[in-house]
Amino acid sequence: MRYGVLGTGDVGRTLAGKLVELGHEVTLGSRTKDNAAAVEWAEGAGPTAHHGTFADAAAFGDVVVNAVGGRIALTVLDSAGEEHLDGKVLLDVSNPMAFEDGELRLSPVESDSVGEQIQRAFPRARVVKSLNTVNCQVMVDPSKVPGEHQIFVSGDDESAKGQVTALLGEFGWPAGRVLDLGGIRTARAAEMYLPLWLNLMRSIGHPDFNVEVRRAR
Amino acid sequence: MRYGVLGTGDVGRTLAGKLVELGHEVTLGSRTKDNAAAVEWAEGAGPTAHHGTFADAAAFGDVVVNAVGGRIALTVLDSAGEEHLDGKVLLDVSNPMAFEDGELRLSPVESDSVGEQIQRAFPRARVVKSLNTVNCQVMVDPSKVPGEHQIFVSGDDESAKGQVTALLGEFGWPAGRVLDLGGIRTARAAEMYLPLWLNLMRSIGHPDFNVEVRRAR
Repeated sequence: MRYGVLGTGDVGRTLAGKLVELGHEVTLGSRTKDNAAAVEWAEGAGPTAHHGTFADAAAFGDVVVNAVGGRIALTVLDSAGEEHLDGKVLLDVSNPMAFEDGELRLSPVESDSVGEQIQRAFPRARVVKSLNTVNCQVMVDPSKVPGEHQIFVSGDDESAKGQVTALLGEFGWPAGRVLDLGGIRTARAAEMYLPLWLNLMRSIGHPDFNVEVRRAR
Repeated sequence: MRYGVLGTGDVGRTLAGKLVELGHEVTLGSRTKDNAAAVEWAEGAGPTAHHGTFADAAAFGDVVVNAVGGRIALTVLDSAGEEHLDGKVLLDVSNPMAFEDGELRLSPVESDSVGEQIQRAFPRARVVKSLNTVNCQVMVDPSKVPGEHQIFVSGDDESAKGQVTALLGEFGWPAGRVLDLGGIRTARAAEMYLPLWLNLMRSIGHPDFNVEVRRAR
């Protein structure tokens, strides 16, 4: 498969690297054609690893992964080009956190989410929200954390969720540990978990954790 | 110990009943002195179970439990009387959910929480947020759900959190499964988990579940 990964931060590079390891061909996209982090990543990751603009990456991918911060997602996807997203699975792993006056804040929140914003702005993309509830190392290697902990998916397109579930399986998340929350509207629930994740990280002292939903029979 | 439990809904009656079972003396408080649900509860629960107004219950308790809906908590605590809360542990188990135009919405959210609102309005009360992340049956009987799932506490007063942790132990939550998120400000993280809880409940089909935080060593 061909993947376009938007964003050259830790999340983007980690996902892109894992996809190459799994045998996929990847273009890592950034604002500029010769972003230093993207060039270095592509040189280190071998012949199936490429770099380019957001538009290059989106045009390249059969599946596009939004790995930029949630607050700039719409701007980045605009520059990626709506025509490069049409009909494609668009996996959104972002969170709209940012520091404001020294405090981490979430926006949009409660009445909206980045996942919903993207689906509204690009109605022909098949948006699936997932992976935003774990650190990027855990995203691509869930065995870092013991137990049958789970990952959530939200999206309006069932076949797109199926494709993402298959990709999560490649990352090491068995289908039985992929919890379907419902339509893309439920992305707001997954995004609103972030403040708890941050408090847990402070309390635990590192980001290699996740939650396992336990239930009575 | 003497407990004043505010709120005669499922949550209030379940907590009050468990406290009586554990050998405590409880006054269940409601808006009116002769609330039918409170009278019936007190008659069924035996000689250490009483009912009265919010003010009666708060005056009675060494510890006061806020088990009314988060959106009416301040109004109820005002009518309970600030003088009946001074210096006391005030355990807030509420969530500020309400239906608005057919949708479940959360308010306050993100920049504030019910826990913080209560602590600001009653600065001499020792507010601890806990138990709001599970159904009331799980609150008082965590063994309903398998696994080492946890419960969160938030509060500015360490000794108050210690008292609540001891009470949680009586309910069946060992101290090792009580996760201290930090000051009362972290109540917003615990309250913002509610939309995810609701989506999980829809997906699971019943409310007898909880999350277990799993971590790498």
